[in-house]
Amino acid sequence: MTENPSPSLWIYDTTLRDGTQREGLSVSIEDKLRIARRLDRLGVPFIEGGWPGANPKDVQFFWQLQEDPLKQAEIVAFCSTRRPNTSAVDEPMLQAILAAGTRWVTIFGKSWDLHVTEGLNTSLTENLAMIRDTIEYLRASGRRVIYDAEHWFDGYKHNRDYALQTLEAAARAGAQWLVLCDTNGGTLPHEISQIVQDVNSHLSIVICQEQMTIPQIGIHTHNDSGTAVANALAAVMAGAKMVQGTINGYGERCGNANLCSLIPNLQLKLGYSCIEENQLSQITEVSRFVSEVVNLAPDEHAPFVGRSAFAHKGGIHVSAVERNPLTYEHIQPEQIGNCRRIVISEQAGLSNVLAKARSFGLELDKQNPQARQILQRLKDLESEGYQFEAAEASFELLMREGLGKRPLFFEIKGFQVHCDLVEGKESTSALATVKLTVNGKDILEAAEGNGPVAALDAALRKALANFYPQIAAFELTDYKVRILNGHTGTAAKTRVLVESRNSHQRWTTVGVSTNILEASYHAVVEGLEYGLLLHSQAEVALNTSS
Amino acid sequence: MTENPSPSLWIYDTTLRDGTQREGLSVSIEDKLRIARRLDRLGVPFIEGGWPGANPKDVQFFWQLQEDPLKQAEIVAFCSTRRPNTSAVDEPMLQAILAAGTRWVTIFGKSWDLHVTEGLNTSLTENLAMIRDTIEYLRASGRRVIYDAEHWFDGYKHNRDYALQTLEAAARAGAQWLVLCDTNGGTLPHEISQIVQDVNSHLSIVICQEQMTIPQIGIHTHNDSGTAVANALAAVMAGAKMVQGTINGYGERCGNANLCSLIPNLQLKLGYSCIEENQLSQITEVSRFVSEVVNLAPDEHAPFVGRSAFAHKGGIHVSAVERNPLTYEHIQPEQIGNCRRIVISEQAGLSNVLAKARSFGLELDKQNPQARQILQRLKDLESEGYQFEAAEASFELLMREGLGKRPLFFEIKGFQVHCDLVEGKESTSALATVKLTVNGKDILEAAEGNGPVAALDAALRKALANFYPQIAAFELTDYKVRILNGHTGTAAKTRVLVESRNSHQRWTTVGVSTNILEASYHAVVEGLEYGLLLHSQAEVALNTSS
Repeated sequence: MTENPSPSLWIYDTTLRDGTQREGLSVSIEDKLRIARRLDRLGVPFIEGGWPGANPKDVQFFWQLQEDPLKQAEIVAFCSTRRPNTSAVDEPMLQAILAAGTRWVTIFGKSWDLHVTEGLNTSLTENLAMIRDTIEYLRASGRRVIYDAEHWFDGYKHNRDYALQTLEAAARAGAQWLVLCDTNGGTLPHEISQIVQDVNSHLSIVICQEQMTIPQIGIHTHNDSGTAVANALAAVMAGAKMVQGTINGYGERCGNANLCSLIPNLQLKLGYSCIEENQLSQITEVSRFVSEVVNLAPDEHAPFVGRSAFAHKGGIHVSAVERNPLTYEHIQPEQIGNCRRIVISEQAGLSNVLAKARSFGLELDKQNPQARQILQRLKDLESEGYQFEAAEASFELLMREGLGKRPLFFEIKGFQVHCDLVEGKESTSALATVKLTVNGKDILEAAEGNGPVAALDAALRKALANFYPQIAAFELTDYKVRILNGHTGTAAKTRVLVESRNSHQRWTTVGVSTNILEASYHAVVEGLEYGLLLHSQAEVALNTSS
Repeated sequence: MTENPSPSLWIYDTTLRDGTQREGLSVSIEDKLRIARRLDRLGVPFIEGGWPGANPKDVQFFWQLQEDPLKQAEIVAFCSTRRPNTSAVDEPMLQAILAAGTRWVTIFGKSWDLHVTEGLNTSLTENLAMIRDTIEYLRASGRRVIYDAEHWFDGYKHNRDYALQTLEAAARAGAQWLVLCDTNGGTLPHEISQIVQDVNSHLSIVICQEQMTIPQIGIHTHNDSGTAVANALAAVMAGAKMVQGTINGYGERCGNANLCSLIPNLQLKLGYSCIEENQLSQITEVSRFVSEVVNLAPDEHAPFVGRSAFAHKGGIHVSAVERNPLTYEHIQPEQIGNCRRIVISEQAGLSNVLAKARSFGLELDKQNPQARQILQRLKDLESEGYQFEAAEASFELLMREGLGKRPLFFEIKGFQVHCDLVEGKESTSALATVKLTVNGKDILEAAEGNGPVAALDAALRKALANFYPQIAAFELTDYKVRILNGHTGTAAKTRVLVESRNSHQRWTTVGVSTNILEASYHAVVEGLEYGLLLHSQAEVALNTSS
């Protein structure tokens, strides 16, 4: 690690260890490596990689990073203290953590007397020895040690003296950091604030008397009370210098403190320096990147980085925010790499439709009766289950339709899908036929796919490729299905979103039907149509400029 | 309203007004009435119903509640102050709010000088007159008034004196409550705390000098900084007596303060009395009820009420939590109507599998090689994209398979699906044929449906009904589709969850395939199979007991 110009706060990411405890989240070694390298580029100083003593996958992960190390971040291996009544040198877990070959290691130990006597079934004295021995052993082996005091706040509330003794043991053994963990997530900000202050003043008295360096304090919070971010902020304001958390707040139960909220709050509002300014503007992208790698839908309503975080819906807001963004936005979305968005929805007034039209380069007048017709059509489709908030390409096609500006690239006549599964045979294939008209010519094409929608997509492309060779460059990149009224079972309405792209743009289209194949078909067809529209606009632009 | 035995804190729900500003959320009048009546039963004292001056839907909503009033809650109508340079009596919005016929009304007005001069285009003095006239007019018409000070905290930070003048104007005009709103959601807890204290001491000096009753202070927060809940708690600890929020934190952008987190925090941790204890234990159900009515997937990781909030995954946790729940849970899940859950997942150790087996009434020994085989099979299927966390019925079938305890009700041989759409024709129908063997008999059946999955379900039921008439009582109640690796487009893998029920139980099954029809087919087939299993167990129990 190149020495940082001592930032006033150290961010410690534990997405790859505590974050993967989230229900429904699982990652491969490759996923973990991709995330670690992305966090390294973001400028996070500490990245906890895993627990090599407990997971064989994590051993491999650390090996791969020894081959091809990170650029600036410290990768940290995680482990518990030695077990009761053993010696550190005989503890296989500690051999595994040394083999990980990191400069820094994090050791967690028990702070709460109840966990020692009931969980570990050992004595309070032996627990102090476990903390001391483990840290001394790792220090003697040349490691720098972060000590995670598990269940710290609950332990403190039940037995303050003993909890403080565990910290003293870690400090005397040479830990550089003492991290106070609210493992069960039940503590509220005002308690965090008081307890962190008490710890700081206690340590400065005790440890100073012994003429040792006082370790710095860190904070690790969970969201079980809905206050993980506020808890971490309270600790920082009470003197903590390290903040542990995860990207998107992933973590067990209700999650860990969300770094995508914490970093902007600390940096933009409280004036701490965590990462560089130009790195801060990558945080929205990092949030979405991580959610894509771990294959979880991003939280659209997440503070700062969510797709809706700077979305304006009500008619009054839209006109006001266009005049002066400060009046309706707590920070500038660009500072964190997010953007303002005008939302098209049922509650949309005419001014939203007009603002949206402008963003598509279509000038519409308030007095224009076509504008009101578009608004009406929009409302009708939304009551059928359409939603254009995420499908702006379909919305643009709808507007062009209303204005008589939708070019007719092809006309669809119908489709058939056939699917045949024989139990025991390796895989089903699906067959689709499509019927359409291009330039007055009737076309019938058929294609196969490993599912009915893939077959439909293939048949449509086959039918159109002779007329529009540019279609070969379009790619269908995402396919989402939402069941609208799930409680009516298989007869439910289905909304399908399809994301397509060419070499430099992405667009999303929507289809709705009780028949999932019909909904998919409409979304795929509009995706191809919109791609052709973009292509023809690009050609016009090229011809005009030349 | 029957007078409450003066609770120390008043909860004000605005799910039906501010909550519906959430992107992607829309509700009918019937939805709003259902939610209002459920909140009434929960014991919330104030329910904001809507803005009758702005939405015709809301006018109807208030009419219907006049016909059939709530049992205990005050339903509140919402409106802005009169517009600049008019008189209150000529303001149609205020006529609409009087016509709503509620005892209480909420009026929002501007606190931030910038919003007055730039947003409303009027003078600071006129804004004070707007606040005064509006409240005086409504008070003279016999209404009790809650004054929402919009953009309060930003206004205070920019121009403390003017912001305080707006509150004084509302207090002098007779408002019973002054609610401080963090409309843009950018304020942090320590600021909230300081500002609320300053307001309280300022008002007690100014208003006391005038020998008037001091209105009580309320708080209304948004989650743009990820601290909405902590902000409301900070305000309460600084003296606020009313807390405004929404169920599940629904609201514009990143949402409002989540009442499902706030009420348990206030009541169980800070000792305030908000709703009755037996009502508190309904809050998980209310959270899920509201998400179902507004048709949004519940947040599984929500604090307190989420499905994962008391889920235990790691092997160590599971054995510890079974010995002493206090060690890993910040409150008892039963207090808020949630429950502990042992999660089956890739990280599951053998102890989780054994605990789960016990919960299905299957005794398994740690030494049993079958237990290890089940664990292996589980891991294989999860790597294919299966997930059993939400599909416990499929998991039980898998375990029974491993133990040789899965009864053979029928054997499936295959299916065919055909779907035909002609553009312009009203609707497509789908045709499915299924082939299966029951008691050695081959059966081929066909059925139609308004989509391919509905057709498959119908054909299966037709084929099985003669042998298992109890199938008529099973109902398919929910159907969910998740695209696993969305970025591979239409060739993506699909995971389907199907929820079924009989007259007294619900169960969920899962299917995975690149072909959405095959995935659906497997989930539907297992749903029927599991229903038959439950039925046969019930019969055994009946015969044994008689």
